[in-house]
Amino acid sequence: MTEFIPPGSRFIDLPSPFPLKRGGALHGARMAYETWGALDADGGNAILILTGLSPDAHAASHAGNREPGWWESMLGPGKYIDTRRWFVICVNSLGSCKGSTGPASIDPDTGRSYRLDFPELSVEDGADAAAHVVRALGVERLACVIGNSMGGMVALALLQRFPGIAHGHINISGAARALPFSIAIRSLQREAIRLDPQWNLGEYDDDAYPEAGMRMARKLGVITYRSALEWDGRFGRVRLDADRRVGDDPFGLEFEVESYLEGHARRFVRRFDPNCYLYLSRSMDWFDLGESCHGTCEEGLSKVRVNRALAIGVYTDILFPIEQQQEIADGLLAGGTDAQCLALPSPQGHDAFLVDIARFGPAVRGFLDSL
Amino acid sequence: MTEFIPPGSRFIDLPSPFPLKRGGALHGARMAYETWGALDADGGNAILILTGLSPDAHAASHAGNREPGWWESMLGPGKYIDTRRWFVICVNSLGSCKGSTGPASIDPDTGRSYRLDFPELSVEDGADAAAHVVRALGVERLACVIGNSMGGMVALALLQRFPGIAHGHINISGAARALPFSIAIRSLQREAIRLDPQWNLGEYDDDAYPEAGMRMARKLGVITYRSALEWDGRFGRVRLDADRRVGDDPFGLEFEVESYLEGHARRFVRRFDPNCYLYLSRSMDWFDLGESCHGTCEEGLSKVRVNRALAIGVYTDILFPIEQQQEIADGLLAGGTDAQCLALPSPQGHDAFLVDIARFGPAVRGFLDSL
Repeated sequence: MTEFIPPGSRFIDLPSPFPLKRGGALHGARMAYETWGALDADGGNAILILTGLSPDAHAASHAGNREPGWWESMLGPGKYIDTRRWFVICVNSLGSCKGSTGPASIDPDTGRSYRLDFPELSVEDGADAAAHVVRALGVERLACVIGNSMGGMVALALLQRFPGIAHGHINISGAARALPFSIAIRSLQREAIRLDPQWNLGEYDDDAYPEAGMRMARKLGVITYRSALEWDGRFGRVRLDADRRVGDDPFGLEFEVESYLEGHARRFVRRFDPNCYLYLSRSMDWFDLGESCHGTCEEGLSKVRVNRALAIGVYTDILFPIEQQQEIADGLLAGGTDAQCLALPSPQGHDAFLVDIARFGPAVRGFLDSL
Repeated sequence: MTEFIPPGSRFIDLPSPFPLKRGGALHGARMAYETWGALDADGGNAILILTGLSPDAHAASHAGNREPGWWESMLGPGKYIDTRRWFVICVNSLGSCKGSTGPASIDPDTGRSYRLDFPELSVEDGADAAAHVVRALGVERLACVIGNSMGGMVALALLQRFPGIAHGHINISGAARALPFSIAIRSLQREAIRLDPQWNLGEYDDDAYPEAGMRMARKLGVITYRSALEWDGRFGRVRLDADRRVGDDPFGLEFEVESYLEGHARRFVRRFDPNCYLYLSRSMDWFDLGESCHGTCEEGLSKVRVNRALAIGVYTDILFPIEQQQEIADGLLAGGTDAQCLALPSPQGHDAFLVDIARFGPAVRGFLDSL
């Protein structure tokens, strides 16, 4: 069980006990976060960033950690999210393994890591934990909450559960509920991990580790995070050079696209805890902003109180398709929010917000400037 | 190693040796086929059907096998492919386990099943074998060759390698080359099988069988054979009733879509030989009609000699996207074929041709009537 905590992380303890939506409570739990810029005297310039499933809180470099972050081109002095103007907070998700408490963390009641004894985790729990961080940092009301992918779900739960916590909201490639295609993909990813004998009902260690299952899960993830269109242009039918091929196994790596997936997977499997992956993945399946308020998704969205909102998505996203960002904008609008949906022609699919900064950056900056 | 041969199958021996495109040769190989209707005196009413990866030659019921076939609603007396008018041949693919010779068959040179000693299989080999069946049945020139999915690849290879073998061609949800998204999906399916310890480098048996790997592969297949749109309407976020759930495992089957995948997979895993699956799957990755003639895919298509062609696809197909059927029609047209592409609004994705007979049937009949 390994946690992967970026240097320069800061921490805020959650209330103990910290009750979870589906039952149970955490004791002595904490949230990892990083910040950029400074909070104004009137506290009105704070932005909260909620991440996808796997990133840590290190969205960009800062004095405490000079390594580039996962949104380095988006965030910093003079960048699209300009940290000379905005005080930016990014939290590592509750349930993750990158500083915030999750299944890989030590359970203070037993002195061993939680593993499958971690209580069932929901998107709403992540929202409650993030809200606590915001309050603890002295922010009464966020100028904007930005949520990417899973973070888009957490952001909507946050707005629903803490009316008035934010003036603006940018939902990037997010969703107000999980739909069956993405549930099916995630279910298969979890099955790959759980079928690996080395997963061992969550009782693996660094020597006996569900590497094959994690590799399969990650490859399937990468397939659904990008797009066929991008890959046609990027890989086509190009083969690996002979010196990069191993043996003459007809089922071995032969095409560039196979090698690309393998490389991505190998970089990931030892850097994310498998049990944490299972918990965060399942939390997304369970999410439906409508169910939480005993209505439809549309009703759930219409009850969210935020002044202005922008939902951004791309046409090539198969995991969180553009219809889901349109649903968010339509639902918020129906509740009186000044909300719009922006559909971008990025070819990179779900992951476009990480790489197509040329399109996402101006959209994000434009919205922030207008607040 | 099990073959699954429908009752009422007929067989034609292939020439021995039967050389394969990528090297090696088969000895004593045979093809399973079924027919419907009767060949005209002038031999001008023959239609050949080439299937997707997994179906057998039992496309529809007949006197020798009253069980409904996989295209029962399409094919028969008075149906869209009217067997009172047409003499219809369907072959089981070379390399399959449903009567034609494949990795699950006995190698006469050794007396044991080929398993991984089967030579590398290509789409072109399947075309050569199908052409032999057509000739052996006394058909000089087909009125039409219909290829579905993988069969669409085989059909194009057949037309390329045997100029003049058919007057007309219907390519259904097929492709003239494999693109990286589908290569990636198939690569992951094969990896799931090969990672299963019970696959055992192909040396499994009924007791030690790579069931988990086959189940994963099939689930991923089903995910890519259907569409998110269809599943939204069909499953939404509906949960299984309590009496269909097992225990309280948070990662167990909970959503209808998870149960649907599980059911599909369980029905499949013991009915298709894993090694055959690997060989047929890889043959599709290797296929590019351009490479076979040392040119681009467009050039390959423009050299195909067939009088009239119809490429049919659906907008919701993510595995063989509609652009690939358009590519077929455009390429054939450039070579002088009277070719068209028909894009159908079926919600069922790649599998639509199996279930949306209300749309596919009239399109197929219309083309056949016009020949």
